[in-house]
Amino acid sequence: MSRETLSFPLTSIPPLEPYLPPSTSSTSSKPFLTLTYATSLDASLALAPGVRTTLSGPYSKSMTHYLRTRHDAILVGCTTAIVDNPALNSRLESITSLDQQPRPVILDPKGRWDFSEDSQVIRLAAEFRGKGPWVVTTRGREVKERSELLERVGGKYLFLETGENDRFKWGDVLRVLGEEGVKSVMVEGGGEVINSLLINPENRLVDSVIITIAPTWLGKGGVVVSPSRQEGQTSQLRLRDISWQPHGEDVVLCGRIIHS
Amino acid sequence: MSRETLSFPLTSIPPLEPYLPPSTSSTSSKPFLTLTYATSLDASLALAPGVRTTLSGPYSKSMTHYLRTRHDAILVGCTTAIVDNPALNSRLESITSLDQQPRPVILDPKGRWDFSEDSQVIRLAAEFRGKGPWVVTTRGREVKERSELLERVGGKYLFLETGENDRFKWGDVLRVLGEEGVKSVMVEGGGEVINSLLINPENRLVDSVIITIAPTWLGKGGVVVSPSRQEGQTSQLRLRDISWQPHGEDVVLCGRIIHS
Ligand SMILES: NC(=O)c1ccc[n+]([C@@H]2O[C@H](COP(=O)([O-])OP(=O)(O)OC[C@H]3O[C@@H](n4cnc5c(N)ncnc54)[C@H](OP(=O)(O)O)[C@@H]3O)[C@@H](O)[C@H]2O)c1
Ligand SMILES: NC(=O)c1ccc[n+]([C@@H]2O[C@H](COP(=O)([O-])OP(=O)(O)OC[C@H]3O[C@@H](n4cnc5c(N)ncnc54)[C@H](OP(=O)(O)O)[C@@H]3O)[C@@H](O)[C@H]2O)c1
Repeated sequence: MSRETLSFPLTSIPPLEPYLPPSTSSTSSKPFLTLTYATSLDASLALAPGVRTTLSGPYSKSMTHYLRTRHDAILVGCTTAIVDNPALNSRLESITSLDQQPRPVILDPKGRWDFSEDSQVIRLAAEFRGKGPWVVTTRGREVKERSELLERVGGKYLFLETGENDRFKWGDVLRVLGEEGVKSVMVEGGGEVINSLLINPENRLVDSVIITIAPTWLGKGGVVVSPSRQEGQTSQLRLRDISWQPHGEDVVLCGRIIHS
Repeated sequence: MSRETLSFPLTSIPPLEPYLPPSTSSTSSKPFLTLTYATSLDASLALAPGVRTTLSGPYSKSMTHYLRTRHDAILVGCTTAIVDNPALNSRLESITSLDQQPRPVILDPKGRWDFSEDSQVIRLAAEFRGKGPWVVTTRGREVKERSELLERVGGKYLFLETGENDRFKWGDVLRVLGEEGVKSVMVEGGGEVINSLLINPENRLVDSVIITIAPTWLGKGGVVVSPSRQEGQTSQLRLRDISWQPHGEDVVLCGRIIHS
């Protein structure tokens, strides 16, 4: 695991600010949800699940680590946790305490993520360089050893019922996170998680979108971000309050979803 | 057909200039090839073939009409000609003579495009508001009446042999255009034409790329730009000499393909 720290230029913050969770505690019980990912020109997140794919440049990386410090929690699907073994912490040099780290949240309805002391997110939590993860699963899928391991590093299981297609409802996920005191969550991926948040009416839960686009095509067969269409859908899902910010070879797009 | 004219701000030209065909006659016999298209965040050109899809805003439209004046020819696949009935001319207000119009070129190996006097591109040519189209087809697929119609409006058939999958080789297409005096060609779409130019080694024929990205998702099932991968391909097709130009809600990306 890299111990390299990252810095994010102060001048880059103002253009992002309008899209970030409000610092004043909002009265809404629903956590503020920021959807963020890095994509190729052909809408892929990776060449294939588990194939480490460098898309975006150093600015985007440090921006991600900055954004993580601005959210209470960061959320990924279990496939990302399994295949990438991600750190899910922030390595920003300005971080001085564990409070500033986001809470890693992993959606794992079937308990497929077989983590151990060697998993990065667990190891970092044991070293107080990240918070202990919360694993959202269904009753009966918890594993005793894993539960103990989670608790040892300050994490835990959260339990939810699944609905259609063995999926949690996003409203339920946000509700349970809200009950745990989470005021803001940054959803980072992978493809399935993002696609399921872009469909209607789930996309009403998304407060802002921050996408990095890299000038590359990965070709057919990648992990693609493109929401399923509803029966007979002929309209587009558009963003408003658009901001395009070129940085190095990439561009960062910020916006909010237009609800029809 | 709209008779509305478009204007393109002079100040927008310098950032595009490095990606445009050189004005000094080059010694290369291969025409300069600019690949250009407008896409959604999920890499779609249209909701479905033939479904008119407004993606990008007014800047991108007038840019396209400006780019058309900077190329000797503009090329589309026959599906685009069939389903869109496109004008394929430039409506830039600064145009004063037919010389400034690009030559429409349609790839139609099987003679599927059943054009008539009512087709926009034919009607515009009859009115001297666009050049007569060249239809690239295979011997035996020409239709006598269509050939006469083409010649009446200053167009013609060009004949080529197809290779694999009933497709022309892009090298052959450019060679025959070069023999006709074409020094620059702008390839506008649709999906199949673009995808076939992005694969290796065909992409070596592409001199520059100008893509407009609109902040919208069309959802799964659209006409997607994403090149097929070669057997075992693990690398990306990247651009170099990148320029991102935000305009209104869209961003324009200019670059050149990196050949490995
Ligand atoms: N470029 C980027 O920004 C970025 C960011 C993150 C990840 N990635 C890449 O994305 C790839 C993984 O993406 P992926 O689409 O294969 O998987 P994923 O989205 O990471 O995980 C999908 C799994 O998460 C669970 N899940 C998702 N939504 C759920 C819901 N609403 N309720 C309950 N469970 C839910 C399901 O688990 P079950 O199947 O067990 O039910 C599902 O199969 C990796 O290659 C990773 O590198 C890229
Ligand atoms: N957003 C944009 O910038 C943009 C621009 C243009 C078009 N479009 C949209 O794109 C859609 C059409 O795209 P599409 O992918 O369906 O079709 P397309 O690329 O317009 O045309 C495909 C057809 O052209 C012929 N063709 C293509 N490459 C060839 C080659 N190398 N040699 C010989 N023939 C070749 C083939 O005809 P045969 O099958 O007869 O062999 C092929 O089926 C339309 O909806 C249109 O509105 C969007």
